[in-house]
Amino acid sequence: MKIVGGPSSIDLARKISEMLAFPLVNIRMKRFPDGEFYVKFEENIAGENLLIVQSLYPPQDIHAMELFLILHTARDLGAETIRVFVPYLAYSRQDERYLEGECLSAAMIAEIIESLGADSLYTIDVHNENVLKMYKIPVYNLTASGELARYFAKKTLERPLVVAPDDEDLAKRRAAYAARVLGADWDALEKRRDRYTGEIVTFAKDLNARGRDAIIIDDIISTGKTTANAAKILREQGAKRIFVGVSHALLLGDSIRLIMESGVEEIVGTDSVVNDYAKVSVAPILARALRGDIEQV
Amino acid sequence: MKIVGGPSSIDLARKISEMLAFPLVNIRMKRFPDGEFYVKFEENIAGENLLIVQSLYPPQDIHAMELFLILHTARDLGAETIRVFVPYLAYSRQDERYLEGECLSAAMIAEIIESLGADSLYTIDVHNENVLKMYKIPVYNLTASGELARYFAKKTLERPLVVAPDDEDLAKRRAAYAARVLGADWDALEKRRDRYTGEIVTFAKDLNARGRDAIIIDDIISTGKTTANAAKILREQGAKRIFVGVSHALLLGDSIRLIMESGVEEIVGTDSVVNDYAKVSVAPILARALRGDIEQV
Repeated sequence: MKIVGGPSSIDLARKISEMLAFPLVNIRMKRFPDGEFYVKFEENIAGENLLIVQSLYPPQDIHAMELFLILHTARDLGAETIRVFVPYLAYSRQDERYLEGECLSAAMIAEIIESLGADSLYTIDVHNENVLKMYKIPVYNLTASGELARYFAKKTLERPLVVAPDDEDLAKRRAAYAARVLGADWDALEKRRDRYTGEIVTFAKDLNARGRDAIIIDDIISTGKTTANAAKILREQGAKRIFVGVSHALLLGDSIRLIMESGVEEIVGTDSVVNDYAKVSVAPILARALRGDIEQV
Repeated sequence: MKIVGGPSSIDLARKISEMLAFPLVNIRMKRFPDGEFYVKFEENIAGENLLIVQSLYPPQDIHAMELFLILHTARDLGAETIRVFVPYLAYSRQDERYLEGECLSAAMIAEIIESLGADSLYTIDVHNENVLKMYKIPVYNLTASGELARYFAKKTLERPLVVAPDDEDLAKRRAAYAARVLGADWDALEKRRDRYTGEIVTFAKDLNARGRDAIIIDDIISTGKTTANAAKILREQGAKRIFVGVSHALLLGDSIRLIMESGVEEIVGTDSVVNDYAKVSVAPILARALRGDIEQV
């Protein structure tokens, strides 16, 4: 197998290549003066088994078009099989039609990835599992909760409590998984989101957090409101130190300030999103998955 | 038929709607805080014949994803037929593999537009006609040369000479067409572009321009170098006033300064690209085409 690193995940692709001892494909990418993306495979990939690595963090549309062009070209040049690793799978919000007339953007992404010739898709902690049902090709929804827990395991923590910021099934499974890796216990907050405005309308629950170090485990931080809210509640309930481990640290706008002001000591993201908070790599998760060891919650 | 205006071409869609007396579809579009595009049809379009209007000027990737999402949703909601009007068809440069391993981006755009359910495509002055061969659905490559010529026909011009900035067949046909509408004669400059660097390496030809008003007719202005070069030659050869009529006035970077400093009096673009130079609308061209009057060079 050979590894192709897209513009959004070049370092991650290199890590995967080193970890698996599979070579990186020599590929040239640029933007024309007008902004059009250009890609050129600098070696023959006909008959090769490829893994394309390209995360779809913001700007999603640009990263998506890059993925589409690389995928299309790889197939066009005769790659034998194409696995696609999209750690952050953007447009995973619209998995169903909440209101009449809405777009099913997740279905469109699935349709394009498939029609352009991907044979399978690997992703990390998709926001909504229903999105996976939209694919006809095999999809592996891996979790970064374990790697995040291993990061926190290196710290000296006071009776750690892993906290899911809401009580949805998937959030709880991620927290439970992180807790198991960490040898800690876990609990979940409750929240409700207004279907129209997207605002959180309720948020309350007692946790056994007094005097303990809390680790909030979440899939995405966007505006940071959910995380800051969770941290505030943990602080009110007497938690000592508060950490956040997140698979996709989008950290939009003034989310970082919001989260730090809520009493969080450290935000730990993964290289699913390339920024200063990418302290954990998802490369080992993918490497294990390719060896058949699929890490899922 | 009903008209759907995408984010890049809302005013153009409105013009087409008024011109043809076909209603605009009530559609809601927004961006989520993380940048994801959202679209919702506010009326039932099941069984309707739709025309989606969305130009792909920069930022192309964003406008392309918007088109894909609107198209996918329209088909998903049961539209009977979907015509797509993309005045500026981005990614029309890579129509063939100039170098081994290159992407065929034009083919990918074609593949996605088709697979998402478009029944036909209308575009304006595509940069390379080979791109049209990549479509299985009917494609109508309309020209804005006539409308541009009509704009200049309102001016009092001194023995006007229409000039193609290069001697490629398509450029010459556009100039000849504009000249015919204007009742003027035309000529073409010569140029050669380096296949690797994209730089213009030669550019020279005598024109009968002395004391005359010249109108450069081109499909795209990107960096403005070609246009400024043409204007400089026309100036050297004694042209009086110099105008530029262009189907797609991308006008990147400091192209406007470059062009104006070369002695051009006025740049006239179309609403294929929304900016201050969109002085001519392509709406009548599309309106005529839908009535069966296909304006082509």
